Amino acid sequence: MSAHTDRPSAVTVVGLGPMGRALAAAFLAAGVSTTVWNRTPGRDAELVAAGARAAGSAEEAVAASPLTVVCVVNYDASDAVLRQESVTAALKGRTLVNLSADTPGRARDTAEWAARHGVRYLDGAIMTPAPTIGTDDAVFLHSGPAELYEEHRPVLAALGGTHTHLGEDPGRAAAYDIALLDIFWTAMAGYVHALAVARAEGVTGAELAPFAQGIAAILPPLFTEFAADTDAGTYSGELNPITSAVSTMAHVVHAAEAHGIDASLMRVIEGQARRVVARGHGSDGYTRVADVIAGR
Amino acid sequence: MSAHTDRPSAVTVVGLGPMGRALAAAFLAAGVSTTVWNRTPGRDAELVAAGARAAGSAEEAVAASPLTVVCVVNYDASDAVLRQESVTAALKGRTLVNLSADTPGRARDTAEWAARHGVRYLDGAIMTPAPTIGTDDAVFLHSGPAELYEEHRPVLAALGGTHTHLGEDPGRAAAYDIALLDIFWTAMAGYVHALAVARAEGVTGAELAPFAQGIAAILPPLFTEFAADTDAGTYSGELNPITSAVSTMAHVVHAAEAHGIDASLMRVIEGQARRVVARGHGSDGYTRVADVIAGR
Ligand SMILES: NC(=O)c1ccc[n+]([C@@H]2O[C@H](COP(=O)([O-])OP(=O)(O)OC[C@H]3O[C@@H](n4cnc5c(N)ncnc54)[C@H](OP(=O)(O)O)[C@@H]3O)[C@@H](O)[C@H]2O)c1
Ligand SMILES: NC(=O)c1ccc[n+]([C@@H]2O[C@H](COP(=O)([O-])OP(=O)(O)OC[C@H]3O[C@@H](n4cnc5c(N)ncnc54)[C@H](OP(=O)(O)O)[C@@H]3O)[C@@H](O)[C@H]2O)c1
Repeated sequence: MSAHTDRPSAVTVVGLGPMGRALAAAFLAAGVSTTVWNRTPGRDAELVAAGARAAGSAEEAVAASPLTVVCVVNYDASDAVLRQESVTAALKGRTLVNLSADTPGRARDTAEWAARHGVRYLDGAIMTPAPTIGTDDAVFLHSGPAELYEEHRPVLAALGGTHTHLGEDPGRAAAYDIALLDIFWTAMAGYVHALAVARAEGVTGAELAPFAQGIAAILPPLFTEFAADTDAGTYSGELNPITSAVSTMAHVVHAAEAHGIDASLMRVIEGQARRVVARGHGSDGYTRVADVIAGR
Repeated sequence: MSAHTDRPSAVTVVGLGPMGRALAAAFLAAGVSTTVWNRTPGRDAELVAAGARAAGSAEEAVAASPLTVVCVVNYDASDAVLRQESVTAALKGRTLVNLSADTPGRARDTAEWAARHGVRYLDGAIMTPAPTIGTDDAVFLHSGPAELYEEHRPVLAALGGTHTHLGEDPGRAAAYDIALLDIFWTAMAGYVHALAVARAEGVTGAELAPFAQGIAAILPPLFTEFAADTDAGTYSGELNPITSAVSTMAHVVHAAEAHGIDASLMRVIEGQARRVVARGHGSDGYTRVADVIAGR
């Protein structure tokens, strides 16, 4: 550690997809000595030009630094790299932070594997796109031993943005990640579908986008309200009963299918809402769906 | 019309669900003389107390004012009221604004029906919840004859918010409405699903909501980017290829189903993305899905 910054002298980044490259670039920009490795060679040219050390193997990569950050497509991929005997042996006594995305179960399994092999382990997730890394906009979630997190916080801070330690359960960052990816991809799927329906109606993306921004603007207060509703088990539909919602969902299905556009997504959404109505909760609000999909 | 405000002396509101009541209340608050009617009696008590005239029948209601605003669950409902012979006859020469939600096809059909019966017709859609009516936050979309819209703009302004005339095609407001409802309900479905998954992982809505707000905050610029991408037919996945997206979608499915939570929504989303990959577009961005669902 440097006495001034409390940052370790070196970090290794394993995985040089768009995100891994952004992480390594941010470490380099912050003056952290950085070693990089990727399964497929040739992804490190710009990083090496910026001062990174290119390791010849995964084993050599993790041996080069007290801290390794891995960011690959998922935990099958990180297992394929890290659970090789020589790599696991080289990690012993060092710290591993896995910022790849996967399920809470895979995160917990990896923490157990790490404990069995004397690897100090933190799990994490990145909630913002690659271009945010190194900027104030980046959002990182962490879970695992609080002490270990505190120890490595200074070097992780080189990645910019906000870092939140969610608790000791190693699966907790992944649990938030899954829930937030659920929100993100479902919203994206709805938007891309809307663009397709609008196009079929002669409305361009440029014409629709300003109104779509208006929809995005009403989501934050609804998110807070729906969260409180679900936590409390109250499902007030006084101002927007699910019977009314179901009807507008059906319009989307009909309008899309009239243009030959696949509406299976909205068919699922409408079907879930109709099950709420069929169970006698038609005057409830939309959040009641949370119970139905969970089989409650 | 009053010489001062250019507002007609009277407006009729047909349909007193949460939205119809909000519309009538806003007209009353703006000093417009307001007649109200609803299929099921007894919904008008507060409005009458605030000065509304209660009509005894739909025919009497539309005959009471030069302008009738109808806001019921859908066009099957508005047809059930308006296409009764006596009501249609009473509407002749008057203006009808249908603010109920339905498909562009139903809006165009209603415009044709109105033309056949000498009813001056504007179609419209309301994009914001009932409590926004009468405030700056309300968003109204209109389509139909521009001249007719200009004539009734002053009284519609009593409803507050922003009013946009989208063009002469009577289906245009509904086309935007469908696309925006698609975005809205899909986003809501993703959020409610995320709340269910989080709950199963021991994460409360209150804990998740602040991070969900963070996701909502990254949507507006992505909406603009995706719209431009789709309009131009470019699908750059350089920073976030669809192969990477597919993997995170699979995590959501696995994590949800491991808790017995229905993940059919994300299964559809993942399936659409996998079809993009299977067609050889794996390095494209997510917007390529817009083509696949439209059978392009
Ligand atoms: N990009 C973003 O904006 C973003 C945002 C938030 C979170 N994330 C997360 O960050 C992680 C990395 O994402 P990414 O954008 O960099 O791209 P990605 O396409 O998800 O991952 C690419 C990386 O995974 C490696 N990989 C795949 N299969 C492998 C295997 N079997 N063995 C070893 N390595 C393997 C690739 O190596 P090769 O080059 O050898 O194929 C490459 O380094 C993902 O979990 C993603 O969900 C990304
Ligand atoms: N509420 C909101 O926040 C909101 C936001 C944007 C847009 N909108 C749109 O505004 C419209 C009205 O919504 P709402 O919230 O007021 O509630 P709603 O539940 O969609 O509609 C209720 C109204 O429809 C009437 N109705 C239903 N079937 C009928 C039929 N066969 N004949 C005659 N009337 C019938 C009801 O009359 P009865 O009382 O006799 O059943 C009641 O007046 C909908 O198209 C909705 O999508 C609502």
